[in-house]
Amino acid sequence: MDKEIIKLISEAGSVAIFPHVNADGDAIGSSLALGMALRNSGKKVWVYMEEDIPTVYKFLPGGELAGFYDESADTADLNIALDTGDVGRLGSRGEGFFMAPCTINIDHHITNTKFAHLNHVNAVSASTGEITYLLLKKLEMEINADIATCLYTAIATDTGGFQYQNTTAETHKIIAELLSTGINVGEISQRIYDNTTYEKLKLTAKSIELLELHENSKLAVVALSLEDIFSTGAKEEDCDGLVNIGRSIESVEVSALIKEKSNTEIRVNLRSKNYVDVSEVAAIFDGGGHKRAAGCTIIGTIEEAKKKIIEAIKERL
Amino acid sequence: MDKEIIKLISEAGSVAIFPHVNADGDAIGSSLALGMALRNSGKKVWVYMEEDIPTVYKFLPGGELAGFYDESADTADLNIALDTGDVGRLGSRGEGFFMAPCTINIDHHITNTKFAHLNHVNAVSASTGEITYLLLKKLEMEINADIATCLYTAIATDTGGFQYQNTTAETHKIIAELLSTGINVGEISQRIYDNTTYEKLKLTAKSIELLELHENSKLAVVALSLEDIFSTGAKEEDCDGLVNIGRSIESVEVSALIKEKSNTEIRVNLRSKNYVDVSEVAAIFDGGGHKRAAGCTIIGTIEEAKKKIIEAIKERL
Ligand SMILES: [Mn+2]
Ligand SMILES: [Mn+2]
Repeated sequence: MDKEIIKLISEAGSVAIFPHVNADGDAIGSSLALGMALRNSGKKVWVYMEEDIPTVYKFLPGGELAGFYDESADTADLNIALDTGDVGRLGSRGEGFFMAPCTINIDHHITNTKFAHLNHVNAVSASTGEITYLLLKKLEMEINADIATCLYTAIATDTGGFQYQNTTAETHKIIAELLSTGINVGEISQRIYDNTTYEKLKLTAKSIELLELHENSKLAVVALSLEDIFSTGAKEEDCDGLVNIGRSIESVEVSALIKEKSNTEIRVNLRSKNYVDVSEVAAIFDGGGHKRAAGCTIIGTIEEAKKKIIEAIKERL
Repeated sequence: MDKEIIKLISEAGSVAIFPHVNADGDAIGSSLALGMALRNSGKKVWVYMEEDIPTVYKFLPGGELAGFYDESADTADLNIALDTGDVGRLGSRGEGFFMAPCTINIDHHITNTKFAHLNHVNAVSASTGEITYLLLKKLEMEINADIATCLYTAIATDTGGFQYQNTTAETHKIIAELLSTGINVGEISQRIYDNTTYEKLKLTAKSIELLELHENSKLAVVALSLEDIFSTGAKEEDCDGLVNIGRSIESVEVSALIKEKSNTEIRVNLRSKNYVDVSEVAAIFDGGGHKRAAGCTIIGTIEEAKKKIIEAIKERL
């Protein structure tokens, strides 16, 4: 970690933190953890969200720091983007981010465009949560149980519950440290994982019903129309994680979840296991991500998007 | 750990290891890990299984040590039962276990009956895998990547992928040590978790369809007849883990999977989250287990078993 980053954060009187749009567990967990630690050090802190904190992460401590960016908002001494690969992922807050006299970008996406004044991008790290943990250590700030809860959530969600290849001995050492603050791992896990609803389970059953295996069962595709989603009583956000259904099949290398956002806009989530770089596939459609987890948006009908995605993946299997 | 246990294991020329019937990841992982370490120390080793190694655990190193117990088998200097709460869990190998001049029982089930000459039961430990790790450390035996793979699997499976309340800082410290042997966590996780089949997914969808919520959605019950299972093309062993479907619902405290074994024999798996001690419920029907995970067998029809189980749980909610 750049010494200048440590110095700048230490000296700032006020800091605004910017997680990416559609904040996931890593983005929101890292942001609230850093926010609480900086606040506990006497700084003025804001966490500027693009949307409300997702229901599943409402249990996280520090939520009171979160708010929406407003053009009339005070300018912080320092703006920090967390878990944000490029300016596009700041959504409507892109301009606001650059209003501060100094900006820092802390992330682990290999595709990060290093858009800030100072950039700390460690693509080897499984999560921004791990980088944030190390940052707080360097800053010599106390990691209490509240901060540990947020960092645990950040790390656990971005490593797929410590299952993905990106999980290292370092990851588990950090988690051991976080658990030693006395956080309740059973309770946090339930909040993160066992928070489904009857309707979401129905959506899972629907997705299994619609699941198609292609290319000698190496490619799993689930295409969900808005009607498919709503017919189960589920909400659109309930689609999170459905891409893992296909991934869970032994023979599958790539799993694609193709989800209708509107008549003309289709969101695609991609996961791979061993050798297909799905960030390459996503890049074809101006998307991004990691080798094993990526996403993109395709303009067209759901059938068109499905065809394009299958074609792009086929070549790589 | 009792010094006498360390001494006895160190001095034994031959050791036979006995995991419990229907060996799970903890039982098989711990047994193969201990078996390989003892073999690498020059001892003659057998791992006596009640059944074949389950398909999902066939990837584990050390499988060549496993075999079936035979009355004509050589008697080892020392027989060690692992992860085995009582003699009943040794199945047909109960008599054979007591043939050795010395027997040791290493386990983490709170209900353990301490049936051997020497017993090391640590109910605080999340898995027998963790106890086996500490045992190998005390024995000053090297933990290589093969042994680490088995112990990782043992610990990961018995902690529900590090999610259950029984997971401690110590658990993660041990896992960090195991990962530093260079094992491939992505690959092992895929073997353990992403090994489902299209048929098993269909069984999951079927279970969701049959899922009932009782008692203000605090109790989830799935009752599967043999016909339900086979109509999806799935195998009986594919039912493992289905109890977690009900558990994954936010409002649910107790999840029960009721599964027909035959016209008259019903197997029940129970999971709880926060306050219901399901080992008490299982004990009513002569079953056993832990507070949060237990099981029993009920003689009767599936409808009768369901009624009895709902009644027994109702009182505790
Ligand atoms: Mn991340
Ligand atoms: Mn066990």
